[in-house]
Amino acid sequence: VHKQNLNELQKKLELLHPADVAYILEALPLEQRLDVWELVKADRDGEILLEVSDAVRQTLIADMDSDELLAAAEQLDTDELADLAPDLPKDVLQDLLDSLDAQNRARLQSALSYSDDAVGSIMDFDIVTIREDITLEVALRYMRRLGGLPDHTDKLFVVDRDDVLHGVLPLKRLVVSDLDAKVADVMSEDAVIFHPEDIADDAAKAFERYDLVTAPVVDESGKLVGRVTVDAVMDLIREEAESDMLSMAGLREEEDFFASVWKSVQNRWAWLAINLITALIASRVIGLFEGSIEKIVALAALMPIVAGVGGNSGNQTTTMIVRGLALGQVASHNMKSLITKELGVALLNGLLWGGVIGAVAYALYGSYPLGLVMMSAMTLNLLLAALMGVVIPLMMNKIGRDPAVGSSVLITAMTDSGGFFIFLGLATIFLI
Amino acid sequence: VHKQNLNELQKKLELLHPADVAYILEALPLEQRLDVWELVKADRDGEILLEVSDAVRQTLIADMDSDELLAAAEQLDTDELADLAPDLPKDVLQDLLDSLDAQNRARLQSALSYSDDAVGSIMDFDIVTIREDITLEVALRYMRRLGGLPDHTDKLFVVDRDDVLHGVLPLKRLVVSDLDAKVADVMSEDAVIFHPEDIADDAAKAFERYDLVTAPVVDESGKLVGRVTVDAVMDLIREEAESDMLSMAGLREEEDFFASVWKSVQNRWAWLAINLITALIASRVIGLFEGSIEKIVALAALMPIVAGVGGNSGNQTTTMIVRGLALGQVASHNMKSLITKELGVALLNGLLWGGVIGAVAYALYGSYPLGLVMMSAMTLNLLLAALMGVVIPLMMNKIGRDPAVGSSVLITAMTDSGGFFIFLGLATIFLI
Repeated sequence: VHKQNLNELQKKLELLHPADVAYILEALPLEQRLDVWELVKADRDGEILLEVSDAVRQTLIADMDSDELLAAAEQLDTDELADLAPDLPKDVLQDLLDSLDAQNRARLQSALSYSDDAVGSIMDFDIVTIREDITLEVALRYMRRLGGLPDHTDKLFVVDRDDVLHGVLPLKRLVVSDLDAKVADVMSEDAVIFHPEDIADDAAKAFERYDLVTAPVVDESGKLVGRVTVDAVMDLIREEAESDMLSMAGLREEEDFFASVWKSVQNRWAWLAINLITALIASRVIGLFEGSIEKIVALAALMPIVAGVGGNSGNQTTTMIVRGLALGQVASHNMKSLITKELGVALLNGLLWGGVIGAVAYALYGSYPLGLVMMSAMTLNLLLAALMGVVIPLMMNKIGRDPAVGSSVLITAMTDSGGFFIFLGLATIFLI
Repeated sequence: VHKQNLNELQKKLELLHPADVAYILEALPLEQRLDVWELVKADRDGEILLEVSDAVRQTLIADMDSDELLAAAEQLDTDELADLAPDLPKDVLQDLLDSLDAQNRARLQSALSYSDDAVGSIMDFDIVTIREDITLEVALRYMRRLGGLPDHTDKLFVVDRDDVLHGVLPLKRLVVSDLDAKVADVMSEDAVIFHPEDIADDAAKAFERYDLVTAPVVDESGKLVGRVTVDAVMDLIREEAESDMLSMAGLREEEDFFASVWKSVQNRWAWLAINLITALIASRVIGLFEGSIEKIVALAALMPIVAGVGGNSGNQTTTMIVRGLALGQVASHNMKSLITKELGVALLNGLLWGGVIGAVAYALYGSYPLGLVMMSAMTLNLLLAALMGVVIPLMMNKIGRDPAVGSSVLITAMTDSGGFFIFLGLATIFLI
């Protein structure tokens, strides 16, 4: 547009925190987004690429040439590079690896080798280490020489000559203790430590449980290799919550708000296809009973109630179990009491709501047996829903799959087909 | 059981972190939970009550008499008391207020006066303040006299005589700076600050965006009144994610895993009742077309497909919008382009999957017009789902309600009733 306006916008962007620029980029449709991206000073590209969502990052990277990407990547620390690397074109990544020194290349390669859900993938290398045989006064002098500490430094890591971790020295202990004391006497030896192969989600739980800000990561020989910080953990918690929400709704991954129609269709088609198949199966179950429906057409109107309420109730149970699995509260020793409880809830709900809906059916169609069939079908389908609501997530968990993903579709498939079968089957036996 | 075993168990419990004891209590059925609770030393009751989930806390409190509760509460800080207070019996709370000194009573009362979603409800009072005109050396000497700093202290708050906040001094800057420097020269003046009335969720976003560990809370005159720490923010993020997940599944609140059947029924009945009503409405829509179904019974078998796939697709759209609202990316300026995009996705999906299912209908029932009606109904219902998927959460948001709660039930109600109406309506016009 007007050149003057662009200059003003550019000045405003320069004053903003990278996270705020990222936020603006995410809220803009593609064309305007790229216009704004052009205005951002090249030396901030790296930081901002780290802050935007995966989907938006891809649109920005697609707009940059190899040299720009390399320049952006060179502004970043090794652990930040590891976050960015999967989105970079292969040749840029290779150039980048070549440009690093041996230590950082080894770090980046090892960071990339950990799976997404391992502690190794969220750790960083901004560690400040000291020896245990020095006094606090010497430690403080050493830090003043450093002139600055990495973000989130709430503790120093105490290691020996071989980098083996002996303890941690919290800054808040450092500043209140006697300056003549030795590090060894003030440090804490029972700090929470992680290994790079530990599951990141377990580390996140430890951060929440023990209120940590940073924690050291050591390899199998006890050598300090990195640290985990609370901001990485917070990102992880937020991402996990979002991915659960997305996958429960049948979205494969995070979607750029302004993605093209075609990209969105690709993101959503898989679950729609599964849903189509389960709906088709339910339809064939109804097809079995077309003869009965021809005779009593009211069955067609009533059957979706049995299926729908069953699905809702089954999803309540599944959500409870998925949550219990995530918190580690569901185990083999209490499975029996859980199933018994859920069946009890289902029986009570079935008799209660089945009774109500049976009475409505009687009122609408004036058939006492129809009301009874309705009530029985409802109760049986809720019992089926409860059983499946417990068993499906537990089975998914046992075979090593995320119990949140697709549980809802599977439950609904069961309660639809099952509900139609139970209701139409009972009706065929007792009413026809 | 055996007295010796109990003694051993008690010893083991004593060695555990309160959060770990809480975890064990949550994973036990009620009776065993209360047995273990008996074994926990009285002087740790307070800390552990803070760590357990709301539902489990109620079962533990119900088992304690007034004296025990008062003793437990007296071990806690004011901000911790504020978390516990809503679960305490009225008379215990009154006794507690009477037992506090004037400053702490005022703090507790003000903490209780903030709504659950305000910063005031998550702040604590563990603040360490210094003056700006002293040197860092004096500041360090002052801290050594204090002998210890509160958990999560990553910065000191710089205030004047009237407690008005002038800046913050990060510990990591304190330990690397020249000891002769004045606090005023080293402190940072543009720290992120909050007000007690700010929305807690916005504060959480600021913590994530700017990677904060603690942040000061000031009143309208700039006076320091408390601080927010990252552990409170993490708890908030986790709770919000969980409550979204629970409310999307139609559970009113967190449920104790070992709650009685009757309690569980109470927690779940509200959404089941709403679901029953919407299912009944859908059933009445089908009732309108009983004449058509009597003539072509295949309609009964095919109609749940149209409704089901519409519901799934609508939920995908709603989830996107709910997420965009939460991230602040959906606003009036881009609503039109969002609706256009979602309608485009729906049209493409409708023609694609509607075509597939239309072909299946033709193959099953040998009627070419039936296939066409199926395809058209599917497309129209997906368009309806997309429109409702955008509009419903936006309207909920506009009238000040949480767009996550119940959106799914409302969408499904629309796509069920709408899907039946569209499909049976088209069939009645073109096939009968």
